[in-house]
Amino acid sequence: MRIVVLAGGIGGARFLRGLQQAAPDADITVIGNTGDDIHLFGLKVCPDLDTVMYTLGGGINEEQGWGRTDETFHLKEELAAYGVGPEWFGLGDRDFATHIVRTQMLSAGYPLSAVTEALCDRWKPGVRLIPMSDDRVETHVAVTLPDSGERKVIHFQEYWVRLRASVAAEAVVPVGAEQAKPAPGVLEAIAEADVILFPPSNPVVSVGTILAVPGIREAIADAGVPVVGLSPIVGDAPVRGMADKVLAAVGVESTAAAVAEHYGSGLLDGWLVDTVDAAIVERVETAGIRCRAVPLMMSDLDAAARMAREALTLAEEVRGA
Amino acid sequence: MRIVVLAGGIGGARFLRGLQQAAPDADITVIGNTGDDIHLFGLKVCPDLDTVMYTLGGGINEEQGWGRTDETFHLKEELAAYGVGPEWFGLGDRDFATHIVRTQMLSAGYPLSAVTEALCDRWKPGVRLIPMSDDRVETHVAVTLPDSGERKVIHFQEYWVRLRASVAAEAVVPVGAEQAKPAPGVLEAIAEADVILFPPSNPVVSVGTILAVPGIREAIADAGVPVVGLSPIVGDAPVRGMADKVLAAVGVESTAAAVAEHYGSGLLDGWLVDTVDAAIVERVETAGIRCRAVPLMMSDLDAAARMAREALTLAEEVRGA
Repeated sequence: MRIVVLAGGIGGARFLRGLQQAAPDADITVIGNTGDDIHLFGLKVCPDLDTVMYTLGGGINEEQGWGRTDETFHLKEELAAYGVGPEWFGLGDRDFATHIVRTQMLSAGYPLSAVTEALCDRWKPGVRLIPMSDDRVETHVAVTLPDSGERKVIHFQEYWVRLRASVAAEAVVPVGAEQAKPAPGVLEAIAEADVILFPPSNPVVSVGTILAVPGIREAIADAGVPVVGLSPIVGDAPVRGMADKVLAAVGVESTAAAVAEHYGSGLLDGWLVDTVDAAIVERVETAGIRCRAVPLMMSDLDAAARMAREALTLAEEVRGA
Repeated sequence: MRIVVLAGGIGGARFLRGLQQAAPDADITVIGNTGDDIHLFGLKVCPDLDTVMYTLGGGINEEQGWGRTDETFHLKEELAAYGVGPEWFGLGDRDFATHIVRTQMLSAGYPLSAVTEALCDRWKPGVRLIPMSDDRVETHVAVTLPDSGERKVIHFQEYWVRLRASVAAEAVVPVGAEQAKPAPGVLEAIAEADVILFPPSNPVVSVGTILAVPGIREAIADAGVPVVGLSPIVGDAPVRGMADKVLAAVGVESTAAAVAEHYGSGLLDGWLVDTVDAAIVERVETAGIRCRAVPLMMSDLDAAARMAREALTLAEEVRGA
């Protein structure tokens, strides 16, 4: 079975680990979000790709969900001593190596997809990890700063990590997405997929950014295979992260039903909501999307695997319908 | 008193610390060797400048004489795990920060002299540290590899650090030196100096490389102030490092007298040799260079300060002659 997964960071990575347990023989291709990429200290940093790679490769800091295990922060301390920031972005000494290798390869002319493949040669994540695009896409967020009242467009990481989404996102723009092309292998993987899954990743700044690359949304809609998603919203609140803030920016209420409708029946065939949201199953089905209520808290690997199994079961129901 | 010092790495840095103790009120300008600079992992590394900066700024690893104190090597370990080398060059996590800041500033268009000044804003070495040139100069060494018999030209750092000068240096070439211009402030500092000192740094790949930048040797010879050097060779062997190997490449025997003659009386007015070499004082003086035999082992800061005082005393003798 060939499965394509559109993944953001932590939620996507943990779901993928569950999927590997649920479908050990599946051939999994991950299309990774690169909209949260950022250039720091002259280096190209790809947080979502790295979170997937480290999580599936056994190098992740399990507690925080991002960054490396056994990490130290000496380099960052020294940069701060030189007065060089930003200080709010937590790059560890081990993590820096990934960005240095990536930046060197990019400078040598390799596209990001080839660089990602090379990095995965070390980590052996057990999936094929492809960035959504080799072109530069960086999500920016329009905010009004509370102190000055100044309206400003800032990088998504500044919004997410520095401001911790503490102010309203007035607009979310994946800068460069319109001109971006899917990376080599993305459309082919979608065309050859038996199932396409949207993990409980952020529907705006993770899955939404991937879908904003021209050709990807269309390829998924036209693939003719079940497309099943898992709600990142449980009981009207994001399971983790601050999805509600960016959903508001695109005019979508923070409910499992509204997110399903945001994707739409033209794209999505099946939708899993948490058992606490069982009451909205009917509303989603009325919108033309097959819906089931199952436990959606990824408290551990087994829970993630159960979620993945439910998603694959729903996909088979869609296929048989 | 304005003192100009032409400095290499460890020997130069330790001598400078002694000079600061010996002449606390002096205005010291250090012209630093950049011929051992190397590009590693996409970063510009300036080992000699950093050794001076870290030593005088209190950040040096005192035992090894180079690199940072309290250092870790996690980034380097990770680079090796990615199969990215070279592994023989010991960049620590804290040290990396210096190279990242430097590389970012160079990429932004600042010349190395301005970058060095900015780095020194943090370290406050108590001297003005100027690279010999803002232009790229990299010393290369011609060797015959013992295994294959292949003749090869390698970067000085590869010769020094990886091969530990275990094969003969057949030629030493400061690539780029002929086209290089002295950095802003270098010729001015020399012209305004009251005394010019050559610390017991390597006469070929440290002081020699600085002198190879067109204009510097001439400016020193024409400065009309005492130029006094300290022999890095004690009893026919280098005090530290492998100066004998690179002296052989330029046809100079590894003795304190031969090094003085290599600099020549056109450049050098005074020369300090170690007491074990007292017998050669006459030979050096015959060559037109005032010479004294004093203890030249920089075993600690006080010893270095005594050497600096001897150098300044000899300079005054030269001036009064």
